[in-house]
Amino acid sequence: MPTQEQMKSTLQAYVDGFNSGDVAAVTGLFADDAVVVDPVGNPPMEGRAAIDEFYGNAVSAGAKLSLDAPIRGSHGDRAAMAFTVTVPGMRVRVIDVMTFGADGKIVRMEAHWGPDDVES
Amino acid sequence: MPTQEQMKSTLQAYVDGFNSGDVAAVTGLFADDAVVVDPVGNPPMEGRAAIDEFYGNAVSAGAKLSLDAPIRGSHGDRAAMAFTVTVPGMRVRVIDVMTFGADGKIVRMEAHWGPDDVES
Repeated sequence: MPTQEQMKSTLQAYVDGFNSGDVAAVTGLFADDAVVVDPVGNPPMEGRAAIDEFYGNAVSAGAKLSLDAPIRGSHGDRAAMAFTVTVPGMRVRVIDVMTFGADGKIVRMEAHWGPDDVES
Repeated sequence: MPTQEQMKSTLQAYVDGFNSGDVAAVTGLFADDAVVVDPVGNPPMEGRAAIDEFYGNAVSAGAKLSLDAPIRGSHGDRAAMAFTVTVPGMRVRVIDVMTFGADGKIVRMEAHWGPDDVES
């Protein structure tokens, strides 16, 4: 299991990757067979091709992430963060929960945001 | 499935129940067969007796909750919040994710906080 520091560094790298427009820096944090659920309640996106497409679109759209509070760890294989994502003309309040594999890659990402968490 | 407003109101009631020291107001938000994982990585606590004991102890210890950012919903049956819990001599940064049943009761609570998220 990765350490607290490794998991938190990975979440920070995810934020930094968005903010520098570096999609490979974001997608490289994920295992090839990772599952992304964004938002929770929508069908999961599974595997490398789906993840590359999803984050390629998000970074291309100019999404920038700002942490609302320090990243949290756990006593297991998860870390979580509350942030606001800004894309031109829209802001969304989100809480992401990431689950990690033994090698430190993200194996599951679940993004919690609802219709009421979007401001245009 | 409960509405966004119902789920967010329930999370706010959870915070308010702690802050008024009303353990029944907190435990009454949970289904009788709910599962509480606090922190993630520790064994789950399951069912009414375990939940009543856990929250009875937490409220008795004087735990007070302060939201770090607005409560998030989802496009499904979950809501989440980032907050700081203060007990005498200690502060803990937490992200809770709650899953709801059709009747609006919490059926699962997962608290994300690690050893590094505790300040004494």
